[in-house]
Amino acid sequence: MDDVPAYLELIAQRLEMGFTAVKFHCWCLPEKDLELCRAAREQFPGTAFMHDVENNYSHEDALRVGQELAELNFTWFEAPFPDWDLDGYRQLTSQVDVPIIPSGNWLMDLQSFGHAVHSGTWTRARTDITCLGGLTPAWEALQLCESAGIGCEVLGWGNTLISAANLHLMLANDCCSYFEQSVPYEPYEYGMLDVIRTDSDGQVTAPDSPGLGVRIDWDAMEAATVHRLVFD
Amino acid sequence: MDDVPAYLELIAQRLEMGFTAVKFHCWCLPEKDLELCRAAREQFPGTAFMHDVENNYSHEDALRVGQELAELNFTWFEAPFPDWDLDGYRQLTSQVDVPIIPSGNWLMDLQSFGHAVHSGTWTRARTDITCLGGLTPAWEALQLCESAGIGCEVLGWGNTLISAANLHLMLANDCCSYFEQSVPYEPYEYGMLDVIRTDSDGQVTAPDSPGLGVRIDWDAMEAATVHRLVFD
Amino acid sequence: MDDVPAYLELIAQRLEMGFTAVKFHCWCLPEKDLELCRAAREQFPGTAFMHDVENNYSHEDALRVGQELAELNFTWFEAPFPDWDLDGYRQLTSQVDVPIIPSGNWLMDLQSFGHAVHSGTWTRARTDITCLGGLTPAWEALQLCESAGIGCEVLGWGNTLISAANLHLMLANDCCSYFEQSVPYEPYEYGMLDVIRTDSDGQVTAPDSPGLGVRIDWDAMEAATVHRLVFD
Amino acid sequence: MDDVPAYLELIAQRLEMGFTAVKFHCWCLPEKDLELCRAAREQFPGTAFMHDVENNYSHEDALRVGQELAELNFTWFEAPFPDWDLDGYRQLTSQVDVPIIPSGNWLMDLQSFGHAVHSGTWTRARTDITCLGGLTPAWEALQLCESAGIGCEVLGWGNTLISAANLHLMLANDCCSYFEQSVPYEPYEYGMLDVIRTDSDGQVTAPDSPGLGVRIDWDAMEAATVHRLVFD
Amino acid sequence: MDDVPAYLELIAQRLEMGFTAVKFHCWCLPEKDLELCRAAREQFPGTAFMHDVENNYSHEDALRVGQELAELNFTWFEAPFPDWDLDGYRQLTSQVDVPIIPSGNWLMDLQSFGHAVHSGTWTRARTDITCLGGLTPAWEALQLCESAGIGCEVLGWGNTLISAANLHLMLANDCCSYFEQSVPYEPYEYGMLDVIRTDSDGQVTAPDSPGLGVRIDWDAMEAATVHRLVFD
Amino acid sequence: MDDVPAYLELIAQRLEMGFTAVKFHCWCLPEKDLELCRAAREQFPGTAFMHDVENNYSHEDALRVGQELAELNFTWFEAPFPDWDLDGYRQLTSQVDVPIIPSGNWLMDLQSFGHAVHSGTWTRARTDITCLGGLTPAWEALQLCESAGIGCEVLGWGNTLISAANLHLMLANDCCSYFEQSVPYEPYEYGMLDVIRTDSDGQVTAPDSPGLGVRIDWDAMEAATVHRLVFD
Amino acid sequence: MDDVPAYLELIAQRLEMGFTAVKFHCWCLPEKDLELCRAAREQFPGTAFMHDVENNYSHEDALRVGQELAELNFTWFEAPFPDWDLDGYRQLTSQVDVPIIPSGNWLMDLQSFGHAVHSGTWTRARTDITCLGGLTPAWEALQLCESAGIGCEVLGWGNTLISAANLHLMLANDCCSYFEQSVPYEPYEYGMLDVIRTDSDGQVTAPDSPGLGVRIDWDAMEAATVHRLVFD
Amino acid sequence: MDDVPAYLELIAQRLEMGFTAVKFHCWCLPEKDLELCRAAREQFPGTAFMHDVENNYSHEDALRVGQELAELNFTWFEAPFPDWDLDGYRQLTSQVDVPIIPSGNWLMDLQSFGHAVHSGTWTRARTDITCLGGLTPAWEALQLCESAGIGCEVLGWGNTLISAANLHLMLANDCCSYFEQSVPYEPYEYGMLDVIRTDSDGQVTAPDSPGLGVRIDWDAMEAATVHRLVFD
Repeated sequence: MDDVPAYLELIAQRLEMGFTAVKFHCWCLPEKDLELCRAAREQFPGTAFMHDVENNYSHEDALRVGQELAELNFTWFEAPFPDWDLDGYRQLTSQVDVPIIPSGNWLMDLQSFGHAVHSGTWTRARTDITCLGGLTPAWEALQLCESAGIGCEVLGWGNTLISAANLHLMLANDCCSYFEQSVPYEPYEYGMLDVIRTDSDGQVTAPDSPGLGVRIDWDAMEAATVHRLVFD
Repeated sequence: MDDVPAYLELIAQRLEMGFTAVKFHCWCLPEKDLELCRAAREQFPGTAFMHDVENNYSHEDALRVGQELAELNFTWFEAPFPDWDLDGYRQLTSQVDVPIIPSGNWLMDLQSFGHAVHSGTWTRARTDITCLGGLTPAWEALQLCESAGIGCEVLGWGNTLISAANLHLMLANDCCSYFEQSVPYEPYEYGMLDVIRTDSDGQVTAPDSPGLGVRIDWDAMEAATVHRLVFD
Repeated sequence: MDDVPAYLELIAQRLEMGFTAVKFHCWCLPEKDLELCRAAREQFPGTAFMHDVENNYSHEDALRVGQELAELNFTWFEAPFPDWDLDGYRQLTSQVDVPIIPSGNWLMDLQSFGHAVHSGTWTRARTDITCLGGLTPAWEALQLCESAGIGCEVLGWGNTLISAANLHLMLANDCCSYFEQSVPYEPYEYGMLDVIRTDSDGQVTAPDSPGLGVRIDWDAMEAATVHRLVFD
Repeated sequence: MDDVPAYLELIAQRLEMGFTAVKFHCWCLPEKDLELCRAAREQFPGTAFMHDVENNYSHEDALRVGQELAELNFTWFEAPFPDWDLDGYRQLTSQVDVPIIPSGNWLMDLQSFGHAVHSGTWTRARTDITCLGGLTPAWEALQLCESAGIGCEVLGWGNTLISAANLHLMLANDCCSYFEQSVPYEPYEYGMLDVIRTDSDGQVTAPDSPGLGVRIDWDAMEAATVHRLVFD
Repeated sequence: MDDVPAYLELIAQRLEMGFTAVKFHCWCLPEKDLELCRAAREQFPGTAFMHDVENNYSHEDALRVGQELAELNFTWFEAPFPDWDLDGYRQLTSQVDVPIIPSGNWLMDLQSFGHAVHSGTWTRARTDITCLGGLTPAWEALQLCESAGIGCEVLGWGNTLISAANLHLMLANDCCSYFEQSVPYEPYEYGMLDVIRTDSDGQVTAPDSPGLGVRIDWDAMEAATVHRLVFD
Repeated sequence: MDDVPAYLELIAQRLEMGFTAVKFHCWCLPEKDLELCRAAREQFPGTAFMHDVENNYSHEDALRVGQELAELNFTWFEAPFPDWDLDGYRQLTSQVDVPIIPSGNWLMDLQSFGHAVHSGTWTRARTDITCLGGLTPAWEALQLCESAGIGCEVLGWGNTLISAANLHLMLANDCCSYFEQSVPYEPYEYGMLDVIRTDSDGQVTAPDSPGLGVRIDWDAMEAATVHRLVFD
Repeated sequence: MDDVPAYLELIAQRLEMGFTAVKFHCWCLPEKDLELCRAAREQFPGTAFMHDVENNYSHEDALRVGQELAELNFTWFEAPFPDWDLDGYRQLTSQVDVPIIPSGNWLMDLQSFGHAVHSGTWTRARTDITCLGGLTPAWEALQLCESAGIGCEVLGWGNTLISAANLHLMLANDCCSYFEQSVPYEPYEYGMLDVIRTDSDGQVTAPDSPGLGVRIDWDAMEAATVHRLVFD
Repeated sequence: MDDVPAYLELIAQRLEMGFTAVKFHCWCLPEKDLELCRAAREQFPGTAFMHDVENNYSHEDALRVGQELAELNFTWFEAPFPDWDLDGYRQLTSQVDVPIIPSGNWLMDLQSFGHAVHSGTWTRARTDITCLGGLTPAWEALQLCESAGIGCEVLGWGNTLISAANLHLMLANDCCSYFEQSVPYEPYEYGMLDVIRTDSDGQVTAPDSPGLGVRIDWDAMEAATVHRLVFD
């Protein structure tokens, strides 16, 4: 996507398809990004916009862009810095009025996650079952966010098995907003007999079979196996 | 009350009756609440307004609404979060310019109350004799607020006996503003020979009999007794 | 129990019955308490002792007694101050080497509980399902202790229904040590068809029926009902 | 009093008169003071001793002496530094195990007093009605100490009028230990018809007349008046 | 001075006399005070204005007024709270952009003064030789302000002897702006052979005789002596 | 340079020569400086401007000027205070939105430098090899800035030998923006056979010979030697 | 190794072989571990001992054992808790006098590592090139420890390639003490033409060929390849 | 000085000459240094000893040695770490009971010096007129120490001119203990007509001529001049 008009055109198409929220992954160049953000807000005043810069801004860039995103009433500003720059997040979160969230895949223990939550690092947290080591600690992480009074988005990227676990996790807690759907579907559904797909209303439904609710196609799994670790 | 025009109509009626301050308990939905707040301020520029959302906002909602309430010159913003979310209150109080006060009925010991007061949790505190365990600790709580230089509203909800104690407490200290009158009167006056009512100037007067100054109708009390605990 | 020799005699009897740990609830007078502690340690060098003073010591008493309990190798020092004196607990915990635990029945929300845990208030926490408002928040409290790396004792006092819930809670987490058994048994078992009792090895077993695993004797419950609140 | 033996002789005499506690005001020279403290403890193992050095020690002296006073089991160590050296008090209090108290006549507002209490400046506070500006703020100061869980000694030095107010203050609160009696009596009783004197059991009794309970001899007051300020 | 127009008239007169700065001591009622401040700024856009409310505002009043004074480009906002409300000052100083200064006559030791300076209590400090106990500690206080990079106004109110000492103090340091001249002159010059008066250019000159540079009229002093304390 | 028009004329000339950024060293008088800043921004809306006041502002001046520089979209505000006023820098950096940088030649050890970086003292740090004692600690300082996520400008003033080392340092790290070129060239190139000069595109190129890449003219060095220290 | 005598026998054998330091990996049961530690110190008073419990102690166990290890003059106490329990490490490090070090393989970014170092988490840090992502960040980590004045052990476990890089890292900095040699040698040397082995004096020598100084046996590498990722 | 006996012999000689205090500059090897310290204390129980290790210890060494020096009742422990390791000093000062002082020649501005004093970095500070830039800031530094309640040693090393200024500085303040005399005398007295020498009682006397009180031999100064900087 090379320029702002092309991007605006794409947004218009998606909105016609019924989308109500758009997250930008554009150039990660502050001035060019802002140009798009301003134009999008002017053309689509009622749409929810998020801006995700995939850890590519400097502190000074992020402060300036964040202040303008607040004025443009963006829904959130995602991943301005690498996730380990907790000090940078903390400072930015306290300085701008647009919600700040991280990529969410760096902190891997509950104690670090809890310190970040309790010290105002982000407006909303972000994590998932693969980051924290399974459903139990991810569950605790969401409950920790709830008791701290902040929201927590859940990453949804990955194979159907992982998405299913994350989906159950989200629905069992009350601090998440969107389900992240990896597209195109097929590569993420390899080796699965059951899959999770967004319906025509933009909703996903949790499978209601036992366990995670999705069955594995073991033959396909075998066919694609490269190496095998056995823990007896 | 279903919509903004109906609410505005009600406000107009009350102001004609001589009220000068109105506290909103409306929908606790940020966008709809703000719509009312803006309309009320525009129509009644000189009236004192408070907005009470009974612990129902998220941190992000409260920040956004609080900033606009400050611009609309509201007198206070009450109970955005549950009272135990002291961190959330502290952060909000430091970020918006409208006074922030809690519900006031969760902290039940002077040490916790004092920590909250001294760490800038609220712009004004809120408590009463039933929360803190009697007149003496409530008295100390108000003196603690005075020495910290912040105001303290006193809850007035409850039976006449409780209201009388709270009224004496308020008048003996210098950091309270309004007396909260439970209406309709009668259910809250059951079993009392003397009652406390707001006069036609919107003022209440403390009873000047000995003790709390209001006599109990013991026969009525007996008639309504369900269970009796005796401490010898 | 009036004097030290009588208390020592009682300890000797219990140890013969197979007990291996004894918690003192003695006079709550520092000098007299210490006299017993010293005599008990001298006479029973291998027994686990806890000292519980039910919120009755001053800061200076507790520091002095705590230092000596550490030298006497006590297992813990319980409830030196009221539970709301978090500052006092914090200071004592940092000054003495014997583990410090509170009564555990004052903090009623996860945020306050979490602040206390994270600020080094106690060596081990203490709570239960009735303090925090049910199994879910109590579960979160124990997980919070685990992620902070500290133990959490669970109160066991109360009717069989409550004890059953607390017992399940303890067994499902890995940071508790003892089950507190209310004795004599009967008053705490009123209205129950199933009960929880310590076996001859000093162990209790969790009931394995569905739900909490203990059935209510509804006729007995009806017979003892004083008042009934109905929430439709 | 020039040397240690003479001081020990004096202590022996006082203990025969029934005293059970002795506060030293000796040389304020660390080595010589310690010599007396050690000798006194050895000769009178069961007596309560306090050491008051009237703001004359350096930080290093106080640390060394305080550590030894703790080993000698002194009841308290008073006024090692000027009262404004709050940092010095805080550091000493956290380093030694003997209780540390200040002179108590420098802080004159509740906020400063409260900060000192809440930041662990002293083991026990010390103040009186003349320091804080009357009975009301002194009362609040004692309640503040109670809610913080620390003791507060009350200065007793001064004319009978002041002593009477301080005595009422002490008896109405529960965090004081000793009444300080100014001797010889007469100069402190000038202009009074009623006086406060320690009885043969070492106890003082609060006067039970109205007000402070002691009457002024206005003729004597007039006779001694130097200047008169009139506030109409 | 009863109303805003009268006050504005007075300001106009003073400015014609050559004054370039005016400090308001008006009603200490937030709304009425602001009315004057706005009118004065509009009518006299280039004049330096200070607003002194002599410790009479609440925290909420001060925040609101301070924000508007910043917009009106006032030179400073003086004494919104009692000087002991250090927490209140600290909070206000960090929230508004107009310089905040205290009355300056409460803190009487260098350590407290230093803590206040180093913790951002005021934008500029304020003290004098009588508050801190003489020229030496006042000198140290000003040097302490210089090394902290903040200004320090010196109180000038008092007898010529005191004013002379304060004037020397100010001129020997580089962090003061105005000399405060007590008027009318005579009562403050009693008992002095030499006096300090503002010249026609609004400047005062330090006396260059030895010592403080002003001679005492001992006969006049004797004539007015009420009481005499002699320290041998 | 006496007035604003002359300064604007000079800027216009330089921009015609191809410069795209201009750093002001003007009068260090807040009002006059701001006059220039406003005029320059109005006349040259797309140029990068820095304002360097060489440690000459008071805290109040810097706050006011910094706020306006942010509105004028300046690239940075340099050296408002002496470099040792770390508290002043910290406060200013947190209050204004224009990047704040120090002179950079006071802190001479990595620990102090690191504390300043980690406590938000500056928006961007500033140092060089002569301040920190050689290439190795300067290298560590830049890596420390990178891990903290902030930029670090490198001073370039000095003889060619020093400039060469600083240039290599800058190019080997990724947190610097401009090379500072001392002009006129010759005095800074004395005693060197190779020099570093800015090319016609405003770029400098690092020498690629071994070591620092610039050869010394030892005869010239000998000719100018005043004193010789020999360390065997 | 089942019991203390067998362990002592093993230590005796190793010391005869010339070892001067022994690190225990024993039962991770506090009482049994201490029994060994005491016996070893008594039998070998001049030997350097380390105790490594591989993250298996509770906070209370670690405090008790750490205090005794300090008395037994152990060289360090390793990995009492999981590496993410930074709070637990910080508290233990401040409470016991034996040096505390972590496992060192959890923190993977310089900012987290730096926070831990600067907040007194460990007495000595521990990391290596695989934890932090290569030689460059590991180098920065060691320099960061040097500037903070603490030591940093380097993990040595792994294939020869990794050990070689870690060995160069250690020798190029001045804050490491021991080289950790994985034994038996062969499994860790697979696919290498050059290896690193401890000589008869217990020393290792860095290879002095170019690069890491050890050559890879690519044929052996190919033979053992399971899967191949190619980044073009 | 190669071994402990030789050092003890030297101490014995000096004590016979009347010295009462000895500062060690020995091997800076912890074990060997401690051997001397223990032997010296045993042989000379009443002598004041200081141990100066000239910035050569690790944190762990310093903790261990400091603890033993406290038991050996040393007067102070000097320069365990480089002066810029403020964190290391702070930690050591809070952990050992022997007074800790720095070299004193690194901090060169009052703000850094004040932060170190106020954060408990050293037990006693150390500085002089050359470190801080003249008599005025050094004077302020000593007054700052006095108001913080800690001592401040003054370096005395240097030419007579510097020593004279330092001597006046020490005598005019009340927080210094020893005058440091550079010996042998002559090299430090070059170019002076008046000198400062210790008399037979180990005392130095301040010169009482005007100014610093010592006259310069300008001819000698000229004769030794290498280079001349002139500031007009």
